[in-house]
Amino acid sequence: MPSFKSSEDYLPELAEFVAIPSVSRESNPPDMRAAAQWLADQVSFAGGHLEETNGNPVVAGEWLGAPGAPTVLVYGHYDVQPTGALDEWRTPPFELTVADGKAYGRGATDDKGPILVVLKTAHAFMEQFGGLPLNVKFLFEGEEEIGSPNLPGFLRENAGRFAADLVISADGAQWRPTEPSVSIASKGLLALGIRVTGASRDLHSGRYGGTVQNPVHVLAQLLAGLHSPDGRVAVPGFYDGVAGLTGAERAEIAAIAWDDDAYAAELGVPGLFGEPGHSTLERLFMRPTLEVNGIAGGGPYTVIPHVASAHVTCRLAPGQQPAAVLAAIKAHLDSVPAPGVTVEVTAEKGGATAYQIDPRHPAVAAARDALAAVYPGQDVIHARIGGTLPATVLFEEVLDAKTLFFSFSIADEFLHAPNEFLRVRRLGEGMRAWSLLWRQLAQQPPGAMAASAAATAGAAR
Amino acid sequence: MPSFKSSEDYLPELAEFVAIPSVSRESNPPDMRAAAQWLADQVSFAGGHLEETNGNPVVAGEWLGAPGAPTVLVYGHYDVQPTGALDEWRTPPFELTVADGKAYGRGATDDKGPILVVLKTAHAFMEQFGGLPLNVKFLFEGEEEIGSPNLPGFLRENAGRFAADLVISADGAQWRPTEPSVSIASKGLLALGIRVTGASRDLHSGRYGGTVQNPVHVLAQLLAGLHSPDGRVAVPGFYDGVAGLTGAERAEIAAIAWDDDAYAAELGVPGLFGEPGHSTLERLFMRPTLEVNGIAGGGPYTVIPHVASAHVTCRLAPGQQPAAVLAAIKAHLDSVPAPGVTVEVTAEKGGATAYQIDPRHPAVAAARDALAAVYPGQDVIHARIGGTLPATVLFEEVLDAKTLFFSFSIADEFLHAPNEFLRVRRLGEGMRAWSLLWRQLAQQPPGAMAASAAATAGAAR
Repeated sequence: MPSFKSSEDYLPELAEFVAIPSVSRESNPPDMRAAAQWLADQVSFAGGHLEETNGNPVVAGEWLGAPGAPTVLVYGHYDVQPTGALDEWRTPPFELTVADGKAYGRGATDDKGPILVVLKTAHAFMEQFGGLPLNVKFLFEGEEEIGSPNLPGFLRENAGRFAADLVISADGAQWRPTEPSVSIASKGLLALGIRVTGASRDLHSGRYGGTVQNPVHVLAQLLAGLHSPDGRVAVPGFYDGVAGLTGAERAEIAAIAWDDDAYAAELGVPGLFGEPGHSTLERLFMRPTLEVNGIAGGGPYTVIPHVASAHVTCRLAPGQQPAAVLAAIKAHLDSVPAPGVTVEVTAEKGGATAYQIDPRHPAVAAARDALAAVYPGQDVIHARIGGTLPATVLFEEVLDAKTLFFSFSIADEFLHAPNEFLRVRRLGEGMRAWSLLWRQLAQQPPGAMAASAAATAGAAR
Repeated sequence: MPSFKSSEDYLPELAEFVAIPSVSRESNPPDMRAAAQWLADQVSFAGGHLEETNGNPVVAGEWLGAPGAPTVLVYGHYDVQPTGALDEWRTPPFELTVADGKAYGRGATDDKGPILVVLKTAHAFMEQFGGLPLNVKFLFEGEEEIGSPNLPGFLRENAGRFAADLVISADGAQWRPTEPSVSIASKGLLALGIRVTGASRDLHSGRYGGTVQNPVHVLAQLLAGLHSPDGRVAVPGFYDGVAGLTGAERAEIAAIAWDDDAYAAELGVPGLFGEPGHSTLERLFMRPTLEVNGIAGGGPYTVIPHVASAHVTCRLAPGQQPAAVLAAIKAHLDSVPAPGVTVEVTAEKGGATAYQIDPRHPAVAAARDALAAVYPGQDVIHARIGGTLPATVLFEEVLDAKTLFFSFSIADEFLHAPNEFLRVRRLGEGMRAWSLLWRQLAQQPPGAMAASAAATAGAAR
């Protein structure tokens, strides 16, 4: 029996997991079930099993052998994003391939690798001590990449069984590779579609030109009206409820090492851009955005297209409600005259409010300590996730439990893109950090960590 | 030997021609050559043969057995548009299918049917009289549907051989099925692309939101600035050189039977729209337009797309030069600040000025007479083609010859679309009209019809 495992020793199991193409957007039930079953087997020490939902099954389990200690719920997801264009992958997406300390494959870092870190941590505790230092429940879903449509219903129906003092999410990448970070917030999300329809078919731009409105022209007017030229969102009411940054927040963000020029160069843009009055990091961490993600209509032909459409998402800050923001956008779009066409605005499912955890919450402190121990000499910073993790809001509402992000993914590892990878060393580093985290959380008095606990509720805003 | 042929008798030959998938945009050389050869065989009475160009061959021929009579050059094209989505065709596109008096197939009306009408007219003259009433040259190209890239060079090199008093185009559909029409103008064309580029890749809208400009936002601003909300083109200088309508023109157009509501209903739009101060028909016939034909960028995902693009075409009125309009559009787009992105504006090849022939030109008069004889009791109206026929401008410049549009296609026959068709009866009607037209043109003194002839040059504007 080998005495001392290293990160590399976990790669064969990660390769098995990655090899199962559990792409929820393409929803091949046998693949989804195979990935869930593989995961349930890893949770067998805690009674791991599949539970049915209205979509892909959930993998659940619990080890409750630490009476008096707090209970944490470990959350993650076994589904992955579609591969996208295969010819952009340098290695086969479902064949874990290691090169230069990176393990490439779809799901390697989002979220199969980070899940494996937790489970291997648990296995190590079980092997060494015959038990875990605190009570742990597991909940791995198979629909995170499609907006978790069935998680709310499942969790509400089973709230009692998944009750916990704290949720620890193995999802929610650390911010960047230069230092460890604890994410203390994530933005909310609102997605909507705009569809402008003119004639019943595309029209020849010569034979019909000058007689009808062009849906693309109207769409361009609508979209151009969503922002001021300076980058602010121009929708009246959009910023309602969004608090300005406090001096302390500005100071904390200003203390983070950051180089606008290097960032622009890395992205390949001629310059950065955004809402005036805020630094780049302030905008990224704290400010809501409205992005037109896609536009489509007609083509490079001499037509007046009969339909033009756009997909829009907003990343919401604390204080913004998706329904109110949607109503504000709809009202703003409705205020633009659009003679000769029909404009439809449709909200997509899956709106979510922003999430935040007080930096003074004991779980955040424990996470900082664990990271500081694993990465000696490096500052542990508070980061904010510009993306959206709707499950966090759900856990707070249904379980009265805050969520600690404790993933060993890093946001630069091509999540959702071709050539997704996980830094191999993060497997071992993650296990050491989870071990320390669990040990420290085990010292917390039960109840002290709950979302509604006075100590933290007062400080949050 | 049958004594009296009807339209239906020509369908087998049209079916042979349609069966050759001479799609120039897909450019399968054997198919293109087969269509050209089929056509050359039809022109064998006039020495029909293929001539090489830098692209698809031209079919040429001439019958010059009418000394003292004028010479006309018959123009048409044997190439066709791509089929588009096959599942939108109710019948196989390259299998001529007759139903309810309509012959369905790609190219049936654009331009294979109308070409066959001319050739069958010539065959009938040859059979009955052993010759044609005037001198006829033939020039059928195989690249009209891709903008005739090689016709200018070919024609300039062979200007002497194709010299004629008048060009008669078998291309350029009649306006609508309710009455016969002679088209006395076509609009010019300018096509350009706009491409806005941001980062070197699509960026996650959460992980990067708020830090960079979104190319779609800039594109929307650029496109929205191209028109005033009332429908006028907002590009300074766009209308330079465009004459207002004369009282006579307005009166002639106002006299044409027209129903805005019925037109809107047929197109399926909630209302008509266009430049203020002009009726629908005035806009369609006389006014220049700027249409965004297509937009593309990103998709229904949570990304900040790294590129967004648009395709724009202008239909130009007499007096507008494509290069000047392009420069005006570029200057207008350049005036919009676009920090954080790169904007490229690229003119496409194939710009063309508008074309017009004086309604008092003897060829127009002859065409009116021929149509009046074939369609007794119906008014023959002057129409204008909103589309572009660059060959007309070329013929005027290189051959000093005006072009008479004399096609038996009708603009409602799904040209360029699925289920393209030709009304079967138009084959016979067209032959009678071409016979009358040729007989009447044969009476013209040579030289009287030239573009530069004083009688017409003075009246044109």
